[in-house]
Amino acid sequence: MSPGFPIRTVGLISRPRGSHIPAVLPRLFEWLRKREIQVVYDEETANALPDSSNGKPRDEVADNCQLLLVLGGDGTLISAAGLAATRGIPILPVNMGSLGFLTSFTLEELFPALEDTLNGNYSVSERVMLYVDVQRGEKIIDTERVLNEVVINKGALARMIQLELSINSDFVCRYRADGMIVASPTGSTAYSLSAGGPIVHPSVDCFIITPICPHTLSDRPLVIPQSAFVEVRLAGQTESVFLTLDGQRGIPLESKDCVRISRAKETLRLIHPPKKSYFEILRSKLKWGEA
Amino acid sequence: MSPGFPIRTVGLISRPRGSHIPAVLPRLFEWLRKREIQVVYDEETANALPDSSNGKPRDEVADNCQLLLVLGGDGTLISAAGLAATRGIPILPVNMGSLGFLTSFTLEELFPALEDTLNGNYSVSERVMLYVDVQRGEKIIDTERVLNEVVINKGALARMIQLELSINSDFVCRYRADGMIVASPTGSTAYSLSAGGPIVHPSVDCFIITPICPHTLSDRPLVIPQSAFVEVRLAGQTESVFLTLDGQRGIPLESKDCVRISRAKETLRLIHPPKKSYFEILRSKLKWGEA
Amino acid sequence: MSPGFPIRTVGLISRPRGSHIPAVLPRLFEWLRKREIQVVYDEETANALPDSSNGKPRDEVADNCQLLLVLGGDGTLISAAGLAATRGIPILPVNMGSLGFLTSFTLEELFPALEDTLNGNYSVSERVMLYVDVQRGEKIIDTERVLNEVVINKGALARMIQLELSINSDFVCRYRADGMIVASPTGSTAYSLSAGGPIVHPSVDCFIITPICPHTLSDRPLVIPQSAFVEVRLAGQTESVFLTLDGQRGIPLESKDCVRISRAKETLRLIHPPKKSYFEILRSKLKWGEA
Amino acid sequence: MSPGFPIRTVGLISRPRGSHIPAVLPRLFEWLRKREIQVVYDEETANALPDSSNGKPRDEVADNCQLLLVLGGDGTLISAAGLAATRGIPILPVNMGSLGFLTSFTLEELFPALEDTLNGNYSVSERVMLYVDVQRGEKIIDTERVLNEVVINKGALARMIQLELSINSDFVCRYRADGMIVASPTGSTAYSLSAGGPIVHPSVDCFIITPICPHTLSDRPLVIPQSAFVEVRLAGQTESVFLTLDGQRGIPLESKDCVRISRAKETLRLIHPPKKSYFEILRSKLKWGEA
Repeated sequence: MSPGFPIRTVGLISRPRGSHIPAVLPRLFEWLRKREIQVVYDEETANALPDSSNGKPRDEVADNCQLLLVLGGDGTLISAAGLAATRGIPILPVNMGSLGFLTSFTLEELFPALEDTLNGNYSVSERVMLYVDVQRGEKIIDTERVLNEVVINKGALARMIQLELSINSDFVCRYRADGMIVASPTGSTAYSLSAGGPIVHPSVDCFIITPICPHTLSDRPLVIPQSAFVEVRLAGQTESVFLTLDGQRGIPLESKDCVRISRAKETLRLIHPPKKSYFEILRSKLKWGEA
Repeated sequence: MSPGFPIRTVGLISRPRGSHIPAVLPRLFEWLRKREIQVVYDEETANALPDSSNGKPRDEVADNCQLLLVLGGDGTLISAAGLAATRGIPILPVNMGSLGFLTSFTLEELFPALEDTLNGNYSVSERVMLYVDVQRGEKIIDTERVLNEVVINKGALARMIQLELSINSDFVCRYRADGMIVASPTGSTAYSLSAGGPIVHPSVDCFIITPICPHTLSDRPLVIPQSAFVEVRLAGQTESVFLTLDGQRGIPLESKDCVRISRAKETLRLIHPPKKSYFEILRSKLKWGEA
Repeated sequence: MSPGFPIRTVGLISRPRGSHIPAVLPRLFEWLRKREIQVVYDEETANALPDSSNGKPRDEVADNCQLLLVLGGDGTLISAAGLAATRGIPILPVNMGSLGFLTSFTLEELFPALEDTLNGNYSVSERVMLYVDVQRGEKIIDTERVLNEVVINKGALARMIQLELSINSDFVCRYRADGMIVASPTGSTAYSLSAGGPIVHPSVDCFIITPICPHTLSDRPLVIPQSAFVEVRLAGQTESVFLTLDGQRGIPLESKDCVRISRAKETLRLIHPPKKSYFEILRSKLKWGEA
Repeated sequence: MSPGFPIRTVGLISRPRGSHIPAVLPRLFEWLRKREIQVVYDEETANALPDSSNGKPRDEVADNCQLLLVLGGDGTLISAAGLAATRGIPILPVNMGSLGFLTSFTLEELFPALEDTLNGNYSVSERVMLYVDVQRGEKIIDTERVLNEVVINKGALARMIQLELSINSDFVCRYRADGMIVASPTGSTAYSLSAGGPIVHPSVDCFIITPICPHTLSDRPLVIPQSAFVEVRLAGQTESVFLTLDGQRGIPLESKDCVRISRAKETLRLIHPPKKSYFEILRSKLKWGEA
């Protein structure tokens, strides 16, 4: 439960703009200094400091710490997930605004949570990540790890696209749709949910394949094992189709491109409040139980 | 039931590429010649003829006929709908491939249907059209008539957008979604159906407002009267948002643009087979009753 | 806008049990007495009074008033709708708890709303009702008027049932499902919404046909004109199937029974707050716009 | 891969009424006799034979064989699943009509499949079963194993019910709905699919919790790990609520009853055609890829 421990250096990644973060940073640095913990932070955080010269590139931050503290919303966490997962370091996520699905500590809980974590007294939720590559002709033109979802969808002005789905080389279906989402359980409460997918507990060993606005009305969301090797091939003529990774990176696709998705070797180790259940967060975010 | 009749000139709009149309045209022209009916056709049709020099622009075709014969699929018909509606001339739609929702005559029925129509012996389904304009600041920057639907949606790489919907100046809701569809009953079986909208009989006096992948799970499709004046305003920051009209024309939108939709004064007069009910076509297209 | 006016007698229907109604009644009677308005109330209301002997059967209440005041929730209003509609008297609905879709006055608004109504200063929303009968063999075994919906569904232990739907004698589809809902626009936000139907503004001239848990995934909700004559016939072998009217009356059905639905001649005249729009109530009930 | 093998006795369970089974039985018995395989059959099968006296109760059939041959549809197979699973014997399912999700051999494949199976040359799909019991007060009043799903739902004339869901003693949500389905992956393509649940590959280690016509529109299907202990408690006043097990057995429930569901220790070993993929059957049953 504690690779890289004891913690001597905390890495800090944040999105300070328009948030309470600038006010919190001096207190945080002082708190860490008193405990003789080093801190290394990214350039975006540095820009919120009087002396902005000490920010490091994010991968350097991740290289030099045993714990990654992320201050921000789910988006900030998602952008840091790959850095942490590939290095095996856990993330302590603290939400600066409303509760997030992933960032389940509040600002009030920042110092108690840090204290507990530094003492080795914390709960970790292991989150599966997706490994995706794009095959064009004989070549692999891109690879990436994502936490939430891989989306293939058409441009706003394009017509319905055709996607051929295979799982472990078995042909599944030719979808005619606006697009398709391949999500991890963690991603099931993000875009996939808006497109009609189910809510999947993070400990279920599966991926979710959710068509976006399918033309064939019986094309329902599909839940498959994580051992599956998923291939999505662009069929037919393709005007303007894009691959979007965790809603943060976009790659234009061409006709006959094949997007291939499997379970990444690395998992994200996400520290969470021991007393907040998954369902409590769900209930709060989806406003269940009200009215 | 017969404005512009008797029919002395038939206008012809078609999409001959990759279809059986080139083989049908000589027989069609001969058939019309024998009955002393003039024919005027568009440039796309002309390109499929040995002498391609007699094609006319589509609005000239529409200006000079009392009946518009459309050979092609639903897409071809949609592109001709505005031309016919604004001139009050009916369309006789003949599908070159599989049955369409709108193009409900088959190629085998072409000559009998023409015969019946020329004799004044036909059924017309009046289809409501949408009038849409875009207000930017104080100016109206575009106006159009559409048969199926007005779509506002985000580019493939953009995030969720925010749309403020008002009806008759009453605020309805701020949607956070991939986009929104405002459809006529005719359009209810097109894109709106893929996005989760209901099937609406063409004679119901309503529009359908269907959110695309809404973030708020209670944002359900909304059916409102055709007397409604619908305003959709882009709220929040807007990266890349487009207005798409009948899937054929795209217009980039900017933050605070307001898309306004109401019932067009003109209706499309669509000739349909007297013995094929709306539900028969529906059953066939949606494969109801099988399995 | 004022049949039966001036109002000399107010009818009162309420469900006092477990509510604030017993505390309100003395004030209400005093308020009316001062204005020399008679009041006639039903037996359920009488049971909440010190002298319970003056309650009248509900139809007698309706026979003897020019305005029906309903204190309670949507259920109480629905049970009174037929009484008011067939006599052409308007209903003033006051909700004792949280806002209802139909009962849109709050308890605080009771006396101002009564004052306005007695002065002829009020807004009315005309609500279409459904006329339903059941044909068994050659006979009509039951008829009823309903405000929200007609439901045909299977018993809890029965298997999927088969229902043949016809509209204006055109065969539409054979549904294999748990059941089917035929709803008015008013009923669109009740059971039909839970079963996946659209939200329909009360002024749209339509009915909504929503299958309940359909086996065929393309069996989507259907919106048809109110001029339609709907027939739903029980096909196949039928174990245990029931017709439920407005969620209040149940009738066991037999194989080959035909449930026939059309627009009732009478409409319900529902008084509503002039400043609360339909969409405001919708937004509040569905918690739109939050989070 | 072959407990109980070599196969000396085949058990036969079938539903001959109205099927081709009576014509097949003599050939089947002769085929087995030639290979010196004993056969033992149930009473329903015996009724289709000239001498109906040799039928055995189904549990006796299962007690005395090393392979259970099931001739019929998915319903016949489901009724035999518990018998086979608790004894660790595989089922060879042969469909007498159209292809089933579970009965994936056709009648033409009966003898080749038997031949292969007797030679130990076959593929098995292990199917998780649900263990369910009902707690009333301090007592367990019923227990059962099911293959597809546990359904709690209201009677046709009853109103919406309230169900409190807990998972591993964590409170999840209070549902207001017509009912709730807890399904295995095998059951995901049955009732749960009609109620809006996802399609789940049988090898995913999960259960699916699908609300039936939920009142709260954000109550989406939930996918949870099979290690979960699911408790569903009837809350509020309860008129007429039933527990239905695999669509075959019904148990009336009372207010405060608790239905508890977990993974059964035993799994069903289902023989399937080695060359027919799960997705091929899915595509065929859901008519994907057509039109």
